[in-house]
Amino acid sequence: MDILSKLRIKESELKQAIVVRTDLEMGKGKTAAQCAHASISAYLKTERTDPESAEKWIEEGMKKVVLKVTGEKELFQYFQQAKDAGLPVEIIRDAGLTQIKSGSATCFAIGPADEKEIDNIVGKLKLL
Amino acid sequence: MDILSKLRIKESELKQAIVVRTDLEMGKGKTAAQCAHASISAYLKTERTDPESAEKWIEEGMKKVVLKVTGEKELFQYFQQAKDAGLPVEIIRDAGLTQIKSGSATCFAIGPADEKEIDNIVGKLKLL
Repeated sequence: MDILSKLRIKESELKQAIVVRTDLEMGKGKTAAQCAHASISAYLKTERTDPESAEKWIEEGMKKVVLKVTGEKELFQYFQQAKDAGLPVEIIRDAGLTQIKSGSATCFAIGPADEKEIDNIVGKLKLL
Repeated sequence: MDILSKLRIKESELKQAIVVRTDLEMGKGKTAAQCAHASISAYLKTERTDPESAEKWIEEGMKKVVLKVTGEKELFQYFQQAKDAGLPVEIIRDAGLTQIKSGSATCFAIGPADEKEIDNIVGKLKLL
């Protein structure tokens, strides 16, 4: 890694954003389990593609926000935008044993990545 | 690792349990963020102390359950039992910027670890 990249990582603050569908009306426990799943999945992807950021995020205290979208279409729209921006992103499909239809996409997580880059994509979404 | 230990890991199913306080009346997004925090923290601890189980859990699809307790006393009681049993466990204290008092213990996660060992501790708790 060159010095400019190192400086960029040092100066930026890292966070992870988790984006959840509200239309599935998942309960609190189900929502928490799906979000934890997304959080670890995106973290593991970041660890493979950008290990410095993954490590720094842990050291900084793993800042994360949980945001909401109203449905599947909106979920995939933001997911695709994050992907197109080159951010590490993982979408979660539920096994569907309880509450919701099998294979439904429930949520996705971006990062950890630079806070500003994440906000460029999902900064206007409201907290769940 | 000896052959018996390898067999044990191969035969057992692994899961992670996340235990959350209901008395704090955290919203859905707050609960999800705290649980994701606990989930990653306990995973990282397992990765250090029992990397074979951490890796196998990922491969198996990261089975997890989110359970509930009614207050701080009960939370610490189960946390201590899991710790005394030698399971990898991490408790989360909230920074308290929103919703609840700073430093409050909100939840903890155990594992990934052998499902039966986890159920021995928290198997009677109800799903959140």
